[in-house]
Amino acid sequence: MIYFDNAATTYPKPSEVSVEVLDTIMRYGANPGRSGHKLSIAASEKVYATREKVAKLLSYDSPENVVFTQNATYALNLAIKGMICEKCHVITSDAEHNSVLRPLETLKARYGVEYSTFESDGDIETSIKGLVRSDTKAIISTLTSNVTGKEIPLEILSRISRQLGLPLIVDASQLIGHKRINLKETPCDVLCAPGHKGLFGIQGSGFALISSPLIKNGLAEGGSGTNSMNLSMPEYLPERFEAGTLPTPAICSLGAGIDFIENYGIDRIEEKLNMLTRICSSELRKLHGTEIFGDTGGIVSFRMKGIAPDILARYLDDEDICVRAGLHCAPMIHKKLGSEKTGLVRVSFSVFNEESEIFEFIKALKNFSNKI
Amino acid sequence: MIYFDNAATTYPKPSEVSVEVLDTIMRYGANPGRSGHKLSIAASEKVYATREKVAKLLSYDSPENVVFTQNATYALNLAIKGMICEKCHVITSDAEHNSVLRPLETLKARYGVEYSTFESDGDIETSIKGLVRSDTKAIISTLTSNVTGKEIPLEILSRISRQLGLPLIVDASQLIGHKRINLKETPCDVLCAPGHKGLFGIQGSGFALISSPLIKNGLAEGGSGTNSMNLSMPEYLPERFEAGTLPTPAICSLGAGIDFIENYGIDRIEEKLNMLTRICSSELRKLHGTEIFGDTGGIVSFRMKGIAPDILARYLDDEDICVRAGLHCAPMIHKKLGSEKTGLVRVSFSVFNEESEIFEFIKALKNFSNKI
Repeated sequence: MIYFDNAATTYPKPSEVSVEVLDTIMRYGANPGRSGHKLSIAASEKVYATREKVAKLLSYDSPENVVFTQNATYALNLAIKGMICEKCHVITSDAEHNSVLRPLETLKARYGVEYSTFESDGDIETSIKGLVRSDTKAIISTLTSNVTGKEIPLEILSRISRQLGLPLIVDASQLIGHKRINLKETPCDVLCAPGHKGLFGIQGSGFALISSPLIKNGLAEGGSGTNSMNLSMPEYLPERFEAGTLPTPAICSLGAGIDFIENYGIDRIEEKLNMLTRICSSELRKLHGTEIFGDTGGIVSFRMKGIAPDILARYLDDEDICVRAGLHCAPMIHKKLGSEKTGLVRVSFSVFNEESEIFEFIKALKNFSNKI
Repeated sequence: MIYFDNAATTYPKPSEVSVEVLDTIMRYGANPGRSGHKLSIAASEKVYATREKVAKLLSYDSPENVVFTQNATYALNLAIKGMICEKCHVITSDAEHNSVLRPLETLKARYGVEYSTFESDGDIETSIKGLVRSDTKAIISTLTSNVTGKEIPLEILSRISRQLGLPLIVDASQLIGHKRINLKETPCDVLCAPGHKGLFGIQGSGFALISSPLIKNGLAEGGSGTNSMNLSMPEYLPERFEAGTLPTPAICSLGAGIDFIENYGIDRIEEKLNMLTRICSSELRKLHGTEIFGDTGGIVSFRMKGIAPDILARYLDDEDICVRAGLHCAPMIHKKLGSEKTGLVRVSFSVFNEESEIFEFIKALKNFSNKI
């Protein structure tokens, strides 16, 4: 089987990740932060070590600001709804996933929040500055389109947000693990990411690295293991936003995933993804009737004239090649690309993919073209 | 090591559960519900099979009403905040965990919601009926105190809620997997539970079985894999309340845990827990200066005169016996018991515990008494 759907979730996971999950279940199986006994403390320390790995990966000094969530969507909901609690205006990109757009629509319905979108493929600075209003409260942006793979550089967003004095929430879902992020050099207020994509953890974890005191409310309240007599969540991070039992195995797996990418080398990962993307794109361009809508950062999205993307994806699946057709939960960018009616076929790589798989994929496409 | 902290999370897990987690990572590793390829469909089917197992376990007909969450706390937050969106009054028990109390306090601050607590150890029916007001909107109750182990029978709650025409949200965190629950005979509007306690899944999953249309808002919005052009969550269950990538390995592990308890026999589990509780309680009573505050359903909470519970727990930990001292995230019941200043030592069992471990534990307590 050829798996080209790594932007949805990476597969396979490094064997170290599976080993870590088993080890966590067997040797760190208590509830972290809930009791004072050895097994609970060992679980807490394991979780804290993962906070440290996340912070170090992002060149951030305070591991306790890493708040674990179920996935990147919950991290984004926490950041967006925790920060925006009244009628105001926010600026977001034209390449957002529904994990940003749908919470914004909720805030629109709840408080009358308005949002404007900047052009992610033009002069970002001019576009953002042109949208600022007196009631603008935040900039919320993905760092990479999950459809085109195009990056919206944190360098630019960080600089603009500091210049404008506006808090910045970023969605690093498609960038994390693919490219080095340095929050010391390019700070933001909240960085949200999943554990199960470029970080190679299993599904079931994500995080918000919260460096701003602007997040007021969490999504949920419950047991925090401390201050039980107090009917509010503790004031301090990360406990304030982590209600109930943490997903310890998924969290620890994300730590093992970070070890894997650090050992492999993030620069090498970036190079390999770029190489696979380049080859895939150039081979696709040789095929008659192929339209490419994006080909960067490990993602190639395309359409073949006269063939519905979902039909093509189904055919590829019959050939044991996994790709994702459709709208990829990102309606706005598809509208912009003019692909909102058909959707696109998205091919997305991880370091476990090889050049030879791309040639198999191209061969399958050729066979399909010849058949119809 | 003797692990008596199963009310926090069960440990160890059955080996079938670990095997299932590995199998899910290796063979069902795609993102469920996100793509149309074989691997994604296989993951979706696995997740759906777990919904079916949960529904069957609870004698409930519609698996799609099983909404997966990160833990029971998120399930309770979803149920409580999804149902109560305006100033009103709710009735809850005097034995609630902070996973119910803290969300209620949030609603108090947000809308001015008021709540009254019924006596869980007296005549529940009279107590609840005496609290009903014209603006009472729901009954929210745990089915078992996590401090005393005492059950608040669903039979009674279900009957009263139907008589009064009030929706019923129950927290089955400490009952599920310990005793048969039949939602056909004793219906409620939402049942919330964790995957990692009596169901033996790994940490990272929980669910709300939602049988009421009264839950209007979810906690988070994001990608749902369908209806991407729509900027709202889908209207139907479970997708409506499941934003972003599901914790597939934790969900599947919960399915394997259900298989384990069904094979073992829930009645046999109940008997074994009762037997261990009885022995532990009666042996503790023989020790000088022991005060027992609860001894039912797999939980024994106690204090020894003149010894702070956390000192005792630390000593037991030195002897490799894991118990939980403190307030157990349940302040109200401790106040009622008069143990809010000292906390208690809680011993909690699973079917993996044996009688012999209780005698070891009692021996350790005797040694400690002799030392001081």
